[in-house]
Amino acid sequence: MTQPTREDRFSFGLWTVGWNARDPFGEATRPPIDPVESVHRLAELGAYGVTFHDDDLIPFGTESGERDKIIERFKGALQDTGLVVPMATTNLFTHPVFKEGALTANDRGVRRFAMRKVMRNMDLAAELGAKTYVLWGGREGAEVDGAKDLTAALDRFRESIDTLAQYSEDRGYGLRFALEPKPNEPRGDIFLPTIGHAIAFISTLQHADLVGVNPEVGHEQMAGLNYTHGIAQALWQGKLFHIDLNGQHGIKYDQDLVFGHGDVLSAFATVDLLEHGGPNGGPAYDGPRHFDYKPLRTEDLTGVWESAAANMRTYLLLKERAAAFRADPEVQEALADAAVPELATPTLEGGSYEELLADRAAFEDFDAEAAGARRGGQVRISQLAVEHLLGARG
Amino acid sequence: MTQPTREDRFSFGLWTVGWNARDPFGEATRPPIDPVESVHRLAELGAYGVTFHDDDLIPFGTESGERDKIIERFKGALQDTGLVVPMATTNLFTHPVFKEGALTANDRGVRRFAMRKVMRNMDLAAELGAKTYVLWGGREGAEVDGAKDLTAALDRFRESIDTLAQYSEDRGYGLRFALEPKPNEPRGDIFLPTIGHAIAFISTLQHADLVGVNPEVGHEQMAGLNYTHGIAQALWQGKLFHIDLNGQHGIKYDQDLVFGHGDVLSAFATVDLLEHGGPNGGPAYDGPRHFDYKPLRTEDLTGVWESAAANMRTYLLLKERAAAFRADPEVQEALADAAVPELATPTLEGGSYEELLADRAAFEDFDAEAAGARRGGQVRISQLAVEHLLGARG
Amino acid sequence: MTQPTREDRFSFGLWTVGWNARDPFGEATRPPIDPVESVHRLAELGAYGVTFHDDDLIPFGTESGERDKIIERFKGALQDTGLVVPMATTNLFTHPVFKEGALTANDRGVRRFAMRKVMRNMDLAAELGAKTYVLWGGREGAEVDGAKDLTAALDRFRESIDTLAQYSEDRGYGLRFALEPKPNEPRGDIFLPTIGHAIAFISTLQHADLVGVNPEVGHEQMAGLNYTHGIAQALWQGKLFHIDLNGQHGIKYDQDLVFGHGDVLSAFATVDLLEHGGPNGGPAYDGPRHFDYKPLRTEDLTGVWESAAANMRTYLLLKERAAAFRADPEVQEALADAAVPELATPTLEGGSYEELLADRAAFEDFDAEAAGARRGGQVRISQLAVEHLLGARG
Amino acid sequence: MTQPTREDRFSFGLWTVGWNARDPFGEATRPPIDPVESVHRLAELGAYGVTFHDDDLIPFGTESGERDKIIERFKGALQDTGLVVPMATTNLFTHPVFKEGALTANDRGVRRFAMRKVMRNMDLAAELGAKTYVLWGGREGAEVDGAKDLTAALDRFRESIDTLAQYSEDRGYGLRFALEPKPNEPRGDIFLPTIGHAIAFISTLQHADLVGVNPEVGHEQMAGLNYTHGIAQALWQGKLFHIDLNGQHGIKYDQDLVFGHGDVLSAFATVDLLEHGGPNGGPAYDGPRHFDYKPLRTEDLTGVWESAAANMRTYLLLKERAAAFRADPEVQEALADAAVPELATPTLEGGSYEELLADRAAFEDFDAEAAGARRGGQVRISQLAVEHLLGARG
Repeated sequence: MTQPTREDRFSFGLWTVGWNARDPFGEATRPPIDPVESVHRLAELGAYGVTFHDDDLIPFGTESGERDKIIERFKGALQDTGLVVPMATTNLFTHPVFKEGALTANDRGVRRFAMRKVMRNMDLAAELGAKTYVLWGGREGAEVDGAKDLTAALDRFRESIDTLAQYSEDRGYGLRFALEPKPNEPRGDIFLPTIGHAIAFISTLQHADLVGVNPEVGHEQMAGLNYTHGIAQALWQGKLFHIDLNGQHGIKYDQDLVFGHGDVLSAFATVDLLEHGGPNGGPAYDGPRHFDYKPLRTEDLTGVWESAAANMRTYLLLKERAAAFRADPEVQEALADAAVPELATPTLEGGSYEELLADRAAFEDFDAEAAGARRGGQVRISQLAVEHLLGARG
Repeated sequence: MTQPTREDRFSFGLWTVGWNARDPFGEATRPPIDPVESVHRLAELGAYGVTFHDDDLIPFGTESGERDKIIERFKGALQDTGLVVPMATTNLFTHPVFKEGALTANDRGVRRFAMRKVMRNMDLAAELGAKTYVLWGGREGAEVDGAKDLTAALDRFRESIDTLAQYSEDRGYGLRFALEPKPNEPRGDIFLPTIGHAIAFISTLQHADLVGVNPEVGHEQMAGLNYTHGIAQALWQGKLFHIDLNGQHGIKYDQDLVFGHGDVLSAFATVDLLEHGGPNGGPAYDGPRHFDYKPLRTEDLTGVWESAAANMRTYLLLKERAAAFRADPEVQEALADAAVPELATPTLEGGSYEELLADRAAFEDFDAEAAGARRGGQVRISQLAVEHLLGARG
Repeated sequence: MTQPTREDRFSFGLWTVGWNARDPFGEATRPPIDPVESVHRLAELGAYGVTFHDDDLIPFGTESGERDKIIERFKGALQDTGLVVPMATTNLFTHPVFKEGALTANDRGVRRFAMRKVMRNMDLAAELGAKTYVLWGGREGAEVDGAKDLTAALDRFRESIDTLAQYSEDRGYGLRFALEPKPNEPRGDIFLPTIGHAIAFISTLQHADLVGVNPEVGHEQMAGLNYTHGIAQALWQGKLFHIDLNGQHGIKYDQDLVFGHGDVLSAFATVDLLEHGGPNGGPAYDGPRHFDYKPLRTEDLTGVWESAAANMRTYLLLKERAAAFRADPEVQEALADAAVPELATPTLEGGSYEELLADRAAFEDFDAEAAGARRGGQVRISQLAVEHLLGARG
Repeated sequence: MTQPTREDRFSFGLWTVGWNARDPFGEATRPPIDPVESVHRLAELGAYGVTFHDDDLIPFGTESGERDKIIERFKGALQDTGLVVPMATTNLFTHPVFKEGALTANDRGVRRFAMRKVMRNMDLAAELGAKTYVLWGGREGAEVDGAKDLTAALDRFRESIDTLAQYSEDRGYGLRFALEPKPNEPRGDIFLPTIGHAIAFISTLQHADLVGVNPEVGHEQMAGLNYTHGIAQALWQGKLFHIDLNGQHGIKYDQDLVFGHGDVLSAFATVDLLEHGGPNGGPAYDGPRHFDYKPLRTEDLTGVWESAAANMRTYLLLKERAAAFRADPEVQEALADAAVPELATPTLEGGSYEELLADRAAFEDFDAEAAGARRGGQVRISQLAVEHLLGARG
């Protein structure tokens, strides 16, 4: 049951296992991996999907003929393994041309180049059957407050996303777009820094229905935010189009650890939400479980594949734990005791506030002291969750 | 010019100067201040407005007759001083009844009580001429992920806000609502933790047009976010309905320092944005400059009024610095050099991507290496901003 | 095995279970608990020790006769239950007199009062058989850099601690002192903010041998530091005199959650270190396992005792998991594979660098490329730890 | 007065201006700079010193003959310009061989290689007249708690530093060593993460007198710590051997901004301390003012030299502001009013606690209520500091 299968819908980016382990203070410790090899290895390990930035597959600046050959070889690997490409994305951050931004660069030429780069890879994504197109605006931001017109940047961001959505519609690609928020790194402050900012922005789009978010565990935790809370809001707003699972140890640089190798209690809550929706039901996520992590720089290639397997195995272990948590009668009793299900009941009777104003029991005769002294019951639920996480209850 | 006048539209909450300086580890160090005295003192110092939570003015549980007397006395002070009440809000966090939440408490009785408490104070707010009604959901949140139905909580939040907006419309109060985000404290994780999450949530409301945000400097900085970026997005989305100015030293407990006594370089950028809009113009904020700070616990009453004055004087100094920054020809040249104004130019010609696809100069013939080697010019702007902040340029 | 016994040496502060749940934004949600009741309850739950601040037991300002009665009653409870008092401490933070500091207040009268308050409670601590005296300098700090003479503050801190140590020696109390670091809250910046700063300071004391640290999980994590690393350094320097176990969710206000209800993977490493010392042996901690947590404000008294039990049960579960981790042959193999034991071998042969300079294999002929390509093996250990934590390996 | 001269003792690392702007998500945006050019440019800008890691000057793996030529050329540039080399350091982090650590790597061969690499560069440092040798252990740390023997790591660290100190003494180099703390990045957790941990560690060394710290602004701020407090403790312990000035915007990745371009109010306090010691005098720093920053990745070479100049000019502006602050009679009055100078008075009379115990005025008759109600005066000092920073007072 902790052996991954295609039905688990685990996917990995080429850039994750393929990361050569160069970091801001050090050179690469691993050789590049041929994407075709990654496809085969991931398939063997039980993944169902592979994702990529254009430049992961086809190096920046590759000539057209060579590009075609690379794509054909990649398609062959997909066919051989049965792996799918559920998502693709664009690298708008590695090349120096994007140093001051891509879709929101001050330099209009850079913005136009960036748009074309995205559109070209959307063509490929559609050809490969991708359903989701991710946009991480890693360079869209600033270090110097005075050196950026903040509202113009949002204008340009909106112009870009709406244009790309229109392009997908016109071409019949049927892509849905997922914006990936991050608070900082590599820019001092990145635009649309959290799930919330991204969804707020999306609400202004002409094609708002085609655009959602791709939240990453570590990115929200870099702002000290509760990841499970964040994706719950995204689910509630119908905007959880894709998901990036990994691990992080609190507010610091982006660690991209194996899923569960950071705040594992939070990861437990995340899996519980993804698999079951809220405690009273509610919307659950049905897209790919995508791991966006980096194998530790200390590892060699053996460690790379061990770490890929570790993501999936940890997810499945947490899924088992979450199922046991939900099935435990004592948990159900504790939830009832804490009135958790009562939150699903509307506050008003019949949707009108007139009954509320007329109800003396609601205010004039309400015994606030008694209500304030009532048992909360949260700590019992917390301990039950910890014990289930630890496999200490049946 | 650094002497505040009514035209500066400075306002203070009764709870700011009136804070008795009790903190999680210590007892009150100051006596309570009669709200009427606060009104007189603030007027003398140059403020134009005073704001309040219901319980700041009328202690929780006050009998109706006594309540009326308090209100009359308060009105008298307003009349005597000419101070206005631009905003009011509800205390949904101090009393134990709200320990597990107010508008999103699991306990429906608590939710109904909270709603009534808000409505009652909206009546008073309207009577006093307030235009804005702030809602800070300080207890809406959780410490234990499994003990809260997250999507039901958002359902209830939406139900509440829409009902309150409807009530204001039906009664002809003409209030606009401003949600105040905060990431944590007093709850481990608060719902709608940032400006972004709040605006995203607002987009789902039936009365979305009546609801905006009231961002507080320190609250966003508690999540490591750039406050100026945050309010720029709020302005851009037409949602900056009110503002809470104060100071904070990074990610830690909520400090509520005097405005500018934390990250003063960021405060400079904030004032610049509030006063001038973006570098190319763009929307500027025209509401009250509201200080939501706490005089240090070390201070006596003299220090309380010194700190109130310090907020206004610092704002006015920063306003002077920002005006000089904008007027400096070298700054203008540096902005042009960094292509800052170019971001206002749409990326597409005529709004269609067809011209972009057809434009070989945009992609096939684009010299990415040359563009990547081009001068950024951000550091020069940064240094000019620092020097203007320091009053070192004319 | 997860039922606590006296041999587990669990202890609790009176102020933990007795916290009345007043927080910076809310009134108390629980009644006070008679210390005598706490003693009985903790004994029933399996604790072996109880600790206290002077004012927890004897309210500030209690008359001498009344004070004696309180102490006698408390002694009676200890006798009835067999609970011991392994540690005591002083409240130098609640009363307004300490608002600007206690042992390092600018006001010399306050400093002298603080010293006397500590000395009086040391008398009681010795009488009750305490071995450790904790000093948490919660008010020793500042919000305003210019308003404190930082080096004079350290002079006064040193003067105080050395004096107190001398007093203990002269009186034959045999106390060891444990400084408790915290980075901030309630002060903007607290002096001796981390384990490191405290040990560094201790090295300057005349009575350095009598003074160590009492690190708290959440306090180090409020600075984003690895708690296990911190206490390992304290152990290594012979300075881990006492320990405060609790839970925290990253860098924010001081949460004081139940142990393990925050970063539980880190808690696993902490218990592993406390119980086993390093992976090659090394010093392990043999003092009390002291919980310094606060029952959630949402809880009533039932929740208080549930949460007390939860701390101990979680510790014992983690102890089981850590024992299984150490006993697992695959873990041993993975550690060997990662050369973890090799770190115990001195770098030099025979303690002299001359052999190193003479060893061409060490430098001139060293194959850095080969060494850089070698397997790390850390991710395998990480996954083994996660699986043991989750009870997923036998 | 804001034009830097040799007397200001400003120094820069070759790796600062010479950074090619490669970051974790992007390729280099700038060409390498010939170290000889950097020497000339820095001299022209007014610096007095240049510092380097071995590999900054002589690429890793350079043959001996070529190495000598590089060194000769560099010496020539020093002679031509009059620049000195006050400090040197070793790169123990870029090459893959150090991926799991250098002086504390599990692999003993790596540790020996690292030692030799340091020793070789100490020879060069001494030859060039350096007085200080910095050791930043950027790779000494871990991501996985169970994969490192934490106390053995400290054993090896101690062995290394003591050996290097002995080597310096034996060779007559007269170097003093400065450990540079950092909490994380590039490792998940770095050993000796703060100023405090480093000084604590140093107290265990055989050659403790030869070893101090080299604190970097951003590194302490990455842990949310007050940099000025940290260096004050280092000064107080006689351990501030060197200093790294730069800028940082709170807890996030290591930004290495221009000094003052982050928390400028804190930078003001830092310069005040470095130039004047404490408010009552006290030890001031007399070493080089070393900038360890990175020109923004958006900048070209023009921006590199603009940013180098910006560091020095900002320092000098802050120095002016600090001098005016100290000279302002109102500041002196405010300090006296807040009893700041009183902290220099010992708490005890004559060094004995007996007089304190005998002094009823100190405790039995002490009016704690009156003392607790006394004026603090901190907010006035805070506002005076802000106004001086803003150049708004004379």
